[in-house]
Amino acid sequence: MTWVPGAADSLFGLDNLPYGVFSRPGEPARVGVRIADQVLDLAPVAELGDPASELAVAWRTPSLNAFMATGPAQWEVARRWITEVLRDDAHQERTAPHLHPLAEVQLHLPIQVGDYVDFYASEQHASNVGRMFRPDQEPLLPNWKHLPVGYHGRSGTVVASGTDIVRPCGQRKAPTEDEPTYGPSRRLDIEAELGFVVGVPTALGERVSTADFAAHTFGVVGLNDWSARDIQAWEYVPLGPFLGKSFATSISHWVTPLAALEAAWTDLPGQDPRPLDYLAVTEPAGLDIEVEVVLNGVVVSRPPYASMYWSPAQMLAHTTVNGASVRTGDLWGSGTISGSERDQRGSLLELSWGGKEPFLLDGVERTFLEDGDEVALRYTARGPSGSRLGLGEVVGRVVPAT
Amino acid sequence: MTWVPGAADSLFGLDNLPYGVFSRPGEPARVGVRIADQVLDLAPVAELGDPASELAVAWRTPSLNAFMATGPAQWEVARRWITEVLRDDAHQERTAPHLHPLAEVQLHLPIQVGDYVDFYASEQHASNVGRMFRPDQEPLLPNWKHLPVGYHGRSGTVVASGTDIVRPCGQRKAPTEDEPTYGPSRRLDIEAELGFVVGVPTALGERVSTADFAAHTFGVVGLNDWSARDIQAWEYVPLGPFLGKSFATSISHWVTPLAALEAAWTDLPGQDPRPLDYLAVTEPAGLDIEVEVVLNGVVVSRPPYASMYWSPAQMLAHTTVNGASVRTGDLWGSGTISGSERDQRGSLLELSWGGKEPFLLDGVERTFLEDGDEVALRYTARGPSGSRLGLGEVVGRVVPAT
Repeated sequence: MTWVPGAADSLFGLDNLPYGVFSRPGEPARVGVRIADQVLDLAPVAELGDPASELAVAWRTPSLNAFMATGPAQWEVARRWITEVLRDDAHQERTAPHLHPLAEVQLHLPIQVGDYVDFYASEQHASNVGRMFRPDQEPLLPNWKHLPVGYHGRSGTVVASGTDIVRPCGQRKAPTEDEPTYGPSRRLDIEAELGFVVGVPTALGERVSTADFAAHTFGVVGLNDWSARDIQAWEYVPLGPFLGKSFATSISHWVTPLAALEAAWTDLPGQDPRPLDYLAVTEPAGLDIEVEVVLNGVVVSRPPYASMYWSPAQMLAHTTVNGASVRTGDLWGSGTISGSERDQRGSLLELSWGGKEPFLLDGVERTFLEDGDEVALRYTARGPSGSRLGLGEVVGRVVPAT
Repeated sequence: MTWVPGAADSLFGLDNLPYGVFSRPGEPARVGVRIADQVLDLAPVAELGDPASELAVAWRTPSLNAFMATGPAQWEVARRWITEVLRDDAHQERTAPHLHPLAEVQLHLPIQVGDYVDFYASEQHASNVGRMFRPDQEPLLPNWKHLPVGYHGRSGTVVASGTDIVRPCGQRKAPTEDEPTYGPSRRLDIEAELGFVVGVPTALGERVSTADFAAHTFGVVGLNDWSARDIQAWEYVPLGPFLGKSFATSISHWVTPLAALEAAWTDLPGQDPRPLDYLAVTEPAGLDIEVEVVLNGVVVSRPPYASMYWSPAQMLAHTTVNGASVRTGDLWGSGTISGSERDQRGSLLELSWGGKEPFLLDGVERTFLEDGDEVALRYTARGPSGSRLGLGEVVGRVVPAT
């Protein structure tokens, strides 16, 4: 239990403690930890106490990168110390002045992103897309069950939750059109994903085995991979998505450390054929995380992360199997999370079956995003003793093309 | 003319002046400019004279990014001042102590890379690859002449010329094999490209028109996009190249400023159909740059950059047409440069026609790269009055898989 009011009934209690970057009016941005609806300013509290001064220095910076680079031993020191400070009444008097209501602070992009890779790890999502885009072929391409298919996205346009999304312009060509035209995307979409953040870097030529996942991965964020389906469909052969995705990728303000997710690990749905040795994992390798896709305040889908075919440890092992190095702040997305039911699909492309089967939103037929739409992705993970923990939500509003 | 000995007959004379980052033993890395076979340590010389102190501060840092961010007006101030200092004998006495032979300095990666995008702008290269990979279809896909096809690569594994290239491991599946296997790439290749470096950033939502190319682009580098063809062929559908490229991309130590290339502009080969308005360019929009692909000391190909279909200004305009921002240090590659003749092809894949038509190297049949091979890419551009200017070369040696 904690002396912080409201924490006991919160999705952000003492078992959770996600990190973020915040500022107060006129003050520099620095690292904080969330408890209930407040953020604890970590550096000044650390300077009152006894954690390694390395931590206080890292927490004074405007991104989590310096802290994430300290590695798992320091992450554990930090979490144990924060838990103690927030649990023990003896700390309350000198700590409470450094707790600020979320309503009174500004939250920022929590990490300085290195490389951003996006995967395609949901069998249901990949199958749905295959059925729509290549109706005359097997839904899954031959490589899909042998490796976690992924590609690099644009790290410079990863933005914090709350950033408005300007409808992108570009070349679009519908199958019924002879020539491409230039204009605003007519098929703007979301992809509900989970993102994973690298803490500990590697050298060029080094590989991260699936067993070393937690030695390099700091935590998870909510992630919305905004997608312009018409731009993407015209541009993507043969080198993959580019402008259809690169205009914006939103992530949550809060990074949930892996330590908070210990109770959330669950078995994968099962992999057949058995992957090559470098992709072998020890179960539980999946995560029990529930997602809600909320469009203009209405829940339109509840994708279950536990249904994902490829595990995060496999994605990191695959990314580095060729000797590619990772850096602190590298981010990878899981790919759209879609379950087997229609109301578990993580994109409007799937919810509206390519726009051909509109879904109802407050009684109105909808397909892709309209200007003014607000999308929120909300996440909860299985916590200790059957509780649920909140992950950072990802919000974005569509504004008209300029 | 300059008082620096050897500059008159050099590919790196007073008309050239590329920038790089160097260090001397025990000293920090900082910005220098190349003249003949020497590097001028810019910051201490600037502090003796009168250029804006902003420049001296930027030149004391270990990458070109701070200097590149100052923008075209400062780039011109710097170039005019450097030219004056190296031309006028009055500067010789106090400047000469800051000139260091290249043999006595270490050269570093010149830029801190933001996002790295790789294009596919040679019609001959795209056609050759299409003929080999999709023999039953039109060589060029329907989008190819409407937009410069490109994708994001891994910025964290962009390395400086001279870095050894460890043969990558990964999943490979030949068409004749039933299942993929894990192991070192058997089809390691090069791609001879030119790279372009962004100096002046944009905000999210802003577009860079083709006319504003020079207001944002600082200069060019040599670029070798190392490629594992077997890994790439198995992984690349439907999301594009990933591990087949992400293990390493080499760039030259020297960044040639656009100002040095004023005489190199030449007309594009011609674009039909006419591209959409946002891709319209004023000729001359291409570059007369000759490339030599040198394998173990033997020139095996001479790709002409002037044959490229899409211009660099079109690549930058396309990258930002959806509102994606660019950052100082963003890098884009042209894609493999291949001319219409066999001895103008910029990859071993094309030179050996997928390994089926070996080429002769010192009388020995060769296809893909072998351990111990050293590849050098050398570039010259048309300079003023019919002279040629050297661009930074890109060297890399293949070492065995680990």
